[in-house]
Amino acid sequence: MSVTKDDIEQALVRFLPEKDGLIDTVLKSMHYSLTAGGKRVRPALVLEFAKLCGGSEESALPFACAVEMIHTYSLIHDDLPCMDNDDMRRGKPTNHKVFGEAQAVLGGDALLTLAFETILSREAVMYNSAEKCVEAGRVLAVCAGAEGMIGGQIIDIESEELEAGVDRLREMDDRKTGALIRAACLLGCISAGADDRLKAAARDYANNIGLAFQIVDDILDVTSDNETLGKPVGSDEQNKKSTYVSCLGIEKCRELVGTLTDKAIESLSVFDGDTSALIQLAEKLRDRRK
Amino acid sequence: MSVTKDDIEQALVRFLPEKDGLIDTVLKSMHYSLTAGGKRVRPALVLEFAKLCGGSEESALPFACAVEMIHTYSLIHDDLPCMDNDDMRRGKPTNHKVFGEAQAVLGGDALLTLAFETILSREAVMYNSAEKCVEAGRVLAVCAGAEGMIGGQIIDIESEELEAGVDRLREMDDRKTGALIRAACLLGCISAGADDRLKAAARDYANNIGLAFQIVDDILDVTSDNETLGKPVGSDEQNKKSTYVSCLGIEKCRELVGTLTDKAIESLSVFDGDTSALIQLAEKLRDRRK
Repeated sequence: MSVTKDDIEQALVRFLPEKDGLIDTVLKSMHYSLTAGGKRVRPALVLEFAKLCGGSEESALPFACAVEMIHTYSLIHDDLPCMDNDDMRRGKPTNHKVFGEAQAVLGGDALLTLAFETILSREAVMYNSAEKCVEAGRVLAVCAGAEGMIGGQIIDIESEELEAGVDRLREMDDRKTGALIRAACLLGCISAGADDRLKAAARDYANNIGLAFQIVDDILDVTSDNETLGKPVGSDEQNKKSTYVSCLGIEKCRELVGTLTDKAIESLSVFDGDTSALIQLAEKLRDRRK
Repeated sequence: MSVTKDDIEQALVRFLPEKDGLIDTVLKSMHYSLTAGGKRVRPALVLEFAKLCGGSEESALPFACAVEMIHTYSLIHDDLPCMDNDDMRRGKPTNHKVFGEAQAVLGGDALLTLAFETILSREAVMYNSAEKCVEAGRVLAVCAGAEGMIGGQIIDIESEELEAGVDRLREMDDRKTGALIRAACLLGCISAGADDRLKAAARDYANNIGLAFQIVDDILDVTSDNETLGKPVGSDEQNKKSTYVSCLGIEKCRELVGTLTDKAIESLSVFDGDTSALIQLAEKLRDRRK
């Protein structure tokens, strides 16, 4: 059986706590952002790497959901008035615009906590093993924590109105976007019991598509329109943020995205299995319009 | 070797990420609140129950630190302007007053994430086992999540300006304060490999001291002074919050705290080991002045 995007959507909702009148608002806040129509790139990476390393998608599904919960919570908190203060996300009002700030903080906290409940759930242990769940949870925590994704957000905040160079941008994105993409690829490997050589290749793939992803984001902020992107374009320039485009120019950026995508695809050569889905994913991220 | 309060303080800091220039502010924000002089009731409960069930304090130490990290993050987020909007905590300015709101949100997120990194750390697995770490992490996630501690905070927010009765207060506190105290007692049992009968007794002890703790909080908000308490007294009345005192009167509350403490101590009778420290702890919480 192959796990479809619909299966991921259903699994994400299945791991939410059951209806409970007293905490209805926070459950709605969690559900709202978790089902707000993300691209599900990270869960797809978990499942593809699991398959590629000889594991099964069903076994990796709880890990895939956990990564997406972390991603979702980070968007809720990043959008808060005290952070990026964004009103729209994926063409819909942001969480705090609908539920208020307190519920958005708590909904984010609850999704972050639920990610670990999910990765350590009975289902996760049954399909994998306690050892694999511990390793997966630890990798997720490190990649999502102060040294990983949260650290990237810190660097981002402290770079505001600062003329950050490419090196600082790269360090920021390696944590802010890269770390969780890395976690996704590694969690697939862990579920399948892959060895260190395969994990290193997965990490290479992740690092290259992660950086390409961020550069494409910067390009789209300049070249897209509000409707296509689902959020206001031109926000980087308005916020006087350094971006790859402002540092390197748009042509150089497009070239770089091509090179990084090629490198990502090359890093898949060590795998014996069918890498076509991961090749397509890298190309789709390179060519995306939103 | 016996683990002292100083050992807990040192272990908490040891589990923090290493110095890193780029994310210095968030590390300082995490360190500030983690070392702000808490009573360390929850870590003490983890260690005492581990010992009582025939385990070791060293083995339970990572679990003890994880619970305290969750407690600390919850205080940081509860104090935020969009939540309780408190300026002082334990006699010091609250996290967002020192580091700003964005860093307080992220510092809290990072401590929450670090709790799971710690409970799944190599040290935790080495002293316990992967199976025990998975169980401990899952219990912690459930108790800290939407159905536990966060759910309690939700009920609290939604009860504002509402004439909440004792039943609602009890449901709120059972989650807001009780759930994490329950997690602490259970994590000690899990580290020691205790059976279900002992876990049930630990849960009873936790439920009774948890509720007593909250009622004492409400009493102190009426009877203490700012200096002793380290935060402004009278805030419940000012915020028109229902409390046990406003519902039952102060005499009835004092009586109830006594009964609950007695019940907590009774629940320890199933244990073969030395329960004197847990008896003392229950009495200390009953008699505390801050």
